[in-house]
Amino acid sequence: MKRSERLVAMTNYLLDHPQELVSLPHFSKTYDAAKSSISEDLGIINQMFQQEGIGYLQTVSGAAGGVKYIPKASTSYSQLFVQGLCERLEDPERLLPGGYLFMSDLLGEPGTVKDIGRLFASAFTDKEVDVVMTVATKGIPLAYAVANYLNVPVVIARRDPKVTEGSTVSINYVSGSTRKIQTMVLTKRSLTEGANVLIIDDFMKAGGTINGMRNLLTEFNANVAGIGVLAEAEDEEEDRVVNDYLSLVQIMNVDDRSRQIVVKPGNLLNELTS
Amino acid sequence: MKRSERLVAMTNYLLDHPQELVSLPHFSKTYDAAKSSISEDLGIINQMFQQEGIGYLQTVSGAAGGVKYIPKASTSYSQLFVQGLCERLEDPERLLPGGYLFMSDLLGEPGTVKDIGRLFASAFTDKEVDVVMTVATKGIPLAYAVANYLNVPVVIARRDPKVTEGSTVSINYVSGSTRKIQTMVLTKRSLTEGANVLIIDDFMKAGGTINGMRNLLTEFNANVAGIGVLAEAEDEEEDRVVNDYLSLVQIMNVDDRSRQIVVKPGNLLNELTS
Repeated sequence: MKRSERLVAMTNYLLDHPQELVSLPHFSKTYDAAKSSISEDLGIINQMFQQEGIGYLQTVSGAAGGVKYIPKASTSYSQLFVQGLCERLEDPERLLPGGYLFMSDLLGEPGTVKDIGRLFASAFTDKEVDVVMTVATKGIPLAYAVANYLNVPVVIARRDPKVTEGSTVSINYVSGSTRKIQTMVLTKRSLTEGANVLIIDDFMKAGGTINGMRNLLTEFNANVAGIGVLAEAEDEEEDRVVNDYLSLVQIMNVDDRSRQIVVKPGNLLNELTS
Repeated sequence: MKRSERLVAMTNYLLDHPQELVSLPHFSKTYDAAKSSISEDLGIINQMFQQEGIGYLQTVSGAAGGVKYIPKASTSYSQLFVQGLCERLEDPERLLPGGYLFMSDLLGEPGTVKDIGRLFASAFTDKEVDVVMTVATKGIPLAYAVANYLNVPVVIARRDPKVTEGSTVSINYVSGSTRKIQTMVLTKRSLTEGANVLIIDDFMKAGGTINGMRNLLTEFNANVAGIGVLAEAEDEEEDRVVNDYLSLVQIMNVDDRSRQIVVKPGNLLNELTS
């Protein structure tokens, strides 16, 4: 196989297997090329991935070594994306009764969801994450997008048990905004003890739901590796019960009467650019 | 930029923008290369995409022309994947009370979900699809995986309206298996009139839920472009209300007592290999 052909095949393979250690002999055998040629190829791919702002190749040396594609959004791309998201969210057409914002259209765009996943994965790439967790319904696509780039499975907590889930563990928690007691369940066989769990959700006000997931993880003796929310909103009535989170955007001010919305970048950008 | 570098960048760009028409001048400008060189590059990429079994580049000629990456899983890969899925589903550990099968672990694997999306997208690539629709909860990751490869948005019907959805249209339908009357709602601004909708779900028994989605689409004056389900199960009690669907696997026989499960490839494979 010619170098030009090999580069296309290897680029596809690496993009399709993020965070996975691939040995040089694997490439060497698959594409019938000398290790030295493969090394050169990987050098070119690494350089171009960085130039395109999609991440880099990490080299792991030693007998069990190889390369790993680490997805990482570039600072300039992240800033551009978050800025664009803020502008789209400030559209007064999004205003719903009670000061809520309509976001389902954005969350329905696979490209946007993929980019959100890329940014969260970039921010949490140094943490040890075994699994991504969310609660039904709107966090699900985001959780998968993040898990895709981190190459880990997803578990989904629900508000109600279903027969197709098998045995579940259930907790009660207080919704921060409405002060209502709610239930959250997670399938028993979905988490192993001691797992490091990245919590992802679409929206956070007081943080009651996120806190519920945290309590659920305690029941499984699992650890919180990180918390990421797409949008956080100010909550006047009550103190936030969750503090150690990263948000993509902050909904600062939603004025029902003047139909004005102010949306600012969240603290995730600081994390990525620091 | 050297050809080798350009090939890495262009491969990444095309994989990240499936079903999107990219003009030759776009590439020519972005990578500062002559159109003839770009044409040669695209020839190499097309050949390798086919060799790797991930699809091909479609050339659209004329002034508004360019190339489009059409994801299409190869026959051999599709057969291998479906066969592997059948074997995994036949594990007696999956048996749940009532003859249900536990599948949440499979649906939690981003790689598996991506492959399922690739297969459905391959099967429906010739249909005109404007949007993918599913109903919460388990169909959601599958719907996004398919939509990703088709480059169209996702809309999600729910069992209960939520304030963050805005105005909704609601219908009642009869669940085929349990004969219970259930409700399904869809946000009013999520679908435009005349949209061609691909319905995706994880599981179908009698087809009541799929039929509910079909009825919901009638309310929006939208068309059903196709129906895809991951697993179909035999239902003895009643005739199926949905017939024109593609399934990835067929759960033929679930014997609670002898703890035996028989899972066979569904009709999607025939569609892909015909």
